Parts: sequence; structure tokens; C-alpha cells
Amino acid sequence: MRILSGITSSGECHIGNYFGAMRQHVSFQDKGEAIYFVADYHSMTSLRDADERRRLVREVVLDYLAIGLDPERAVLYRQSDVPEVCELTWLLTSIAPMGLLERSHAYKDKVAQGLPTDHGLFAYPVLMAADILIYNSDIVPVGQDQKQHLEMARDMAQRFNHVYEREVFKLPEPHILEGVAVVPGVDGRKMSKSYDNTLRMFWPQKRLKKAVMSIVTDSTPVEAPKDTKANVFALWSLFANAEEKKQMFERAEAGGLGYGDVKKDLLARILETFGPMREKREELAKHPDDLEDILASGAARARTLGAPVVAAARDAAGLGPA
Amino acid sequence: MRILSGITSSGECHIGNYFGAMRQHVSFQDKGEAIYFVADYHSMTSLRDADERRRLVREVVLDYLAIGLDPERAVLYRQSDVPEVCELTWLLTSIAPMGLLERSHAYKDKVAQGLPTDHGLFAYPVLMAADILIYNSDIVPVGQDQKQHLEMARDMAQRFNHVYEREVFKLPEPHILEGVAVVPGVDGRKMSKSYDNTLRMFWPQKRLKKAVMSIVTDSTPVEAPKDTKANVFALWSLFANAEEKKQMFERAEAGGLGYGDVKKDLLARILETFGPMREKREELAKHPDDLEDILASGAARARTLGAPVVAAARDAAGLGPA
Repeated sequence: MRILSGITSSGECHIGNYFGAMRQHVSFQDKGEAIYFVADYHSMTSLRDADERRRLVREVVLDYLAIGLDPERAVLYRQSDVPEVCELTWLLTSIAPMGLLERSHAYKDKVAQGLPTDHGLFAYPVLMAADILIYNSDIVPVGQDQKQHLEMARDMAQRFNHVYEREVFKLPEPHILEGVAVVPGVDGRKMSKSYDNTLRMFWPQKRLKKAVMSIVTDSTPVEAPKDTKANVFALWSLFANAEEKKQMFERAEAGGLGYGDVKKDLLARILETFGPMREKREELAKHPDDLEDILASGAARARTLGAPVVAAARDAAGLGPA
Repeated sequence: MRILSGITSSGECHIGNYFGAMRQHVSFQDKGEAIYFVADYHSMTSLRDADERRRLVREVVLDYLAIGLDPERAVLYRQSDVPEVCELTWLLTSIAPMGLLERSHAYKDKVAQGLPTDHGLFAYPVLMAADILIYNSDIVPVGQDQKQHLEMARDMAQRFNHVYEREVFKLPEPHILEGVAVVPGVDGRKMSKSYDNTLRMFWPQKRLKKAVMSIVTDSTPVEAPKDTKANVFALWSLFANAEEKKQMFERAEAGGLGYGDVKKDLLARILETFGPMREKREELAKHPDDLEDILASGAARARTLGAPVVAAARDAAGLGPA
């Protein structure tokens, strides 16, 4: 079973990313042949700073390696190191109906957000389809918001196969990431870089402490019962097992538990969970050449995996020598 | 001076193509470093038959070699043998404003003609821009109808250079093909495959004779003066020098000249002009492997010429390792 995950490089990861997708992504390396790519071609549609793009790719690669992605088992590469995906993008572009792309929610959303309406934003799902189809991926783990992109990839695959009367592309199945709690930020809204309310996994201890202590709580006195639906409990619960949760919630409802104590315990748990990963990350960051070697070897493997599909698509379409 | 010409592969060429563009295209090999490519990626937007695509590429390559394109001097290749152009297409896609593409006359025309509104038709000018910009072309000879595409290529080049603050792409100059007479077909309308009114350069003699004899004329009697603006004179004039034209027009105006005589002379001139080319073409067609060798060597040269521009564009955009 071949599983493909695209990784966007939007900066150093926070615990919302970790519990929302990263952890699940990495778990797929135990379930089949997992392929991970950092989507730097895609990032061109919104980021126009070359140095920042390179930096963000490095950061996210470090994050994934730190949390346990194993580049010996899984294939990890930088999207732009496999430019064949752009050729496949043209092949799919040639048969993708305009109407299909015009219906993209993500395009409409981004335009509504005021992003410049460049062609890249519009063509985004075609590149994504090429990413998926180039490896004959069986499974693509996606969040609910990405489901439409996968359906579009299936549509393009089907249409290409139909137009050229050959089963060139396999139709990938979506795997909707289940049981994903929306992780609240320190202000109670969804944790998001754009709200500046995140807890970064690999911040220095001092900075993390400051951020945890700043988690917004209500003014219920220490001795009064606490609402266990509050933000701070939701965050704390990410790091606790069922038994621990039960005990904590009983204490909260009984009164006498201060938010400060919960925060302190949360900080300890965060540091404990991410401590070993942080050490690993710091070690990896010291050897940028090794990081490049990992990416180069991943790209070489990815090219080998993708080559037969690109060749089949070219042949079906009558490109190159007969 | 580097000159780029794209060749569409729409079937065996007729004398309208020859006098309208092909002859001028080939003449550029004497004026600088000429690069010619057969646009099979582009053909995907309208042709969905793989075998036919391959056949048409071969035919047009034979046509161009027959009329004097010299693959030792000029670079002649099949577009899909240089897939790097697709990567550049993505890079330009990411910064091409939707509004720019929406203004394309060719897109609007094709949609009006009822072609399926697939994304390839819309993205066509981006691929064309990549074709032009990948070689830092100085000059692109185009017909008046293609001028907008070249302006769009300049716009995209300028925008990429501006966005990434580096002079990656050179701005190509259009060279509008001058003195190009509209060549009439046998029925008097513009000679065009779609009107089925063509005279193909390399038809067998018998078929050509039949077609020339079918040129539509009026019923002016032999002894009466003839209108030298008539179709048959326009076609005949393509093969005559100024002195010959003067004499012929004097005879026509004096009366006593039959259309049949003009047609016979026209046929003789067509056969004389294209005879040696036809022989060359037949010889070339016997050796399909040699043809492939020519295209392969052209592609290798084209890739070498394009590589520095692709590398510069990638680097400016922050793709790949630093």
C-alpha cells in the first residue's frame, strides 16, 4: 500500500499541527510505503521570498525527522527535486475542465482572503493531482478541508484515462484524518500561526513557559469548581491518558484546583513529550549537509517510483518517440 | 542573436503555410542561432489521438527538413523531449495574473469556436512563454495573430524578474513576419486546411494537377481581358518574379489568355519549386531512425541551452538546495 502525504512548509510547527496532522502522517510509515514531500512548488503561490522558502523547507524537515519520520523507511523529499511532477501537471492541465477548477473551494477562499489571483492559485489542484498520481498512490491522508482536492485528482485521473483510452492512473482513495481534535490556542481560538496564539513544540523552555502561563482563563477563584471544557483543560488533555483525565476533572469539579497548577502540569508534560524530540532536532540541525543528503536520497527514490507513471502517461498521450 | 520558432503540427503543409511562415522561419537559420521546436505539448489542448500526434510531428519535421531547415546549423527538436519547459511553466504560472490570461484573444476565439474549455487552452500562453523564455530568446518571429502571446511572455518575464528581484529572464522582441501575402485557396478564400481548399506542397503530381485545375475562375471568355486580381493570378504570382509578372499581366489585360494556360504554367512552377524538396522529403521519410536521431540531437542541444535559465529561475525562486 502506497501512502502519499504532502507537507506544507509554513514555519516551525506548533502543537496544533502536531496533534492535528503531523503525528498521524508519521504513523503511516508503519502502514505501508509512505511518501512525504515538502511542497515548495506549491508554496510559490503565496510566498515570494526565496530565502524564506528554503529556510521553511529546512525547518519542517527538521520537525518531521524530530517527531519520528524515518527516512530509511519512508521516502522524504523536497517537491522541487522531482520536477517531473511539473510535466505531469501539464498533461493533466490539458484535459482538466475549467469548470472543475473554478469550483475549487480553496481557490475561492484564497481569493476572498485577498491573496493575489494569480494563475498558480487557480492551477494549484492540478499540481496537487500530479503529486498524487505520479506515484500511483493508494491512500492520501487529508483533512476534511482537503477532501475536494483529492476528488479533483480522481476526476483528472479518470478523464485522462478516458481520453487516452488507457488505465494510466490509479484512482487514489482519500483517508480522512479521524479523531482529530481542534486544538485551541492560548487565547481559546483555534491554534493557528495567523492568530499568534500558538505553543511551538520546539520553543526554548523559557518561552514555552511564558506562553503556557499566558493561557487565557476565567476569574473563577481557586476554591470554586472549574469548567472542565475550558481551554486550559483541553490543552492539558492532549497530554493525558483517560485515567489521568478522570482524576484531574474530578479535582476541577470539586474546587480547590488553581489554573496555575494545571498550567504548570501542562508545561511539564509538554516538555516531557517534546524534550527528546527537541534534542534530536537540535542534533540534526547541526548537520545541514546530512539533511541535504537525506532529501537527495529521498528525491532519487521518489524519481524512481514516479518514472514508470510519467513514462506511461507520455506514451498514452503520444509524446516523445514511439 | 538567438531566434526561436515554434512549429505547430497540424498536418502536411500547403503552399499557404510555405509562403506564409515556413519559408521565413527557415530563413532565420542564416540570421542567428535558430531554435525550432515542434509543439506537441501544445497540441494536447486540441488533439487527443496519440498516434495521430506522433504522425503529425514526423510529417512536419519532414516538411521542414525538406524545405531546407539544416539541423546541423539550427536546433530542431520535439517540444516534449525537453520537459524542463513544464517546470518553467509552473514557475511562471505561480506569478501570472489570472487577468492576463483571461484577456487572451486566442483563448476567447477557441472557446467561441466550440473547443472544450479545458484548462490547457487557458494555460496555453504560459507554456508558450516558457518555450520562449527558457532560451533567453532575442527574437521570436510571429504572425500578427500571435503578437499578443509574445506580449504575454514579456509580461510574465517582467513580473517574475520583479517578484524575485533578479534579472532571470530576458525580454524577447517580437519579429512580425512582414510582406506575408494571404495565400488564397483553390476556392478563393484564404488557403486553409479547415476550408479544404489547399494545394499541398508534396502531393503526388496527379493530385496536385487535379487541384490546380480545380482553381475556381470566372467565365470570362478566352479572348476577353482578365482581372489580374483573380485568385489564379494571385497563386501564380507566388512563383514568378517581377518581370514575369509584368509580362503575364500584360497578356491577361490584352485578352487572348485562357485560365487553363495560367493553371498549366502554375502547375509547372509548383512542381519545379517543390520537386527537389519532394525528392529530399521522400528520401528522408525512408529513414525514420535518422529522423529520430536528428530530433534527439536537437533535444540534447536544446536542453543544454535551456539549463542555465532553468537553474537561474529555480535559484531566484528558492527552489532546491541553496
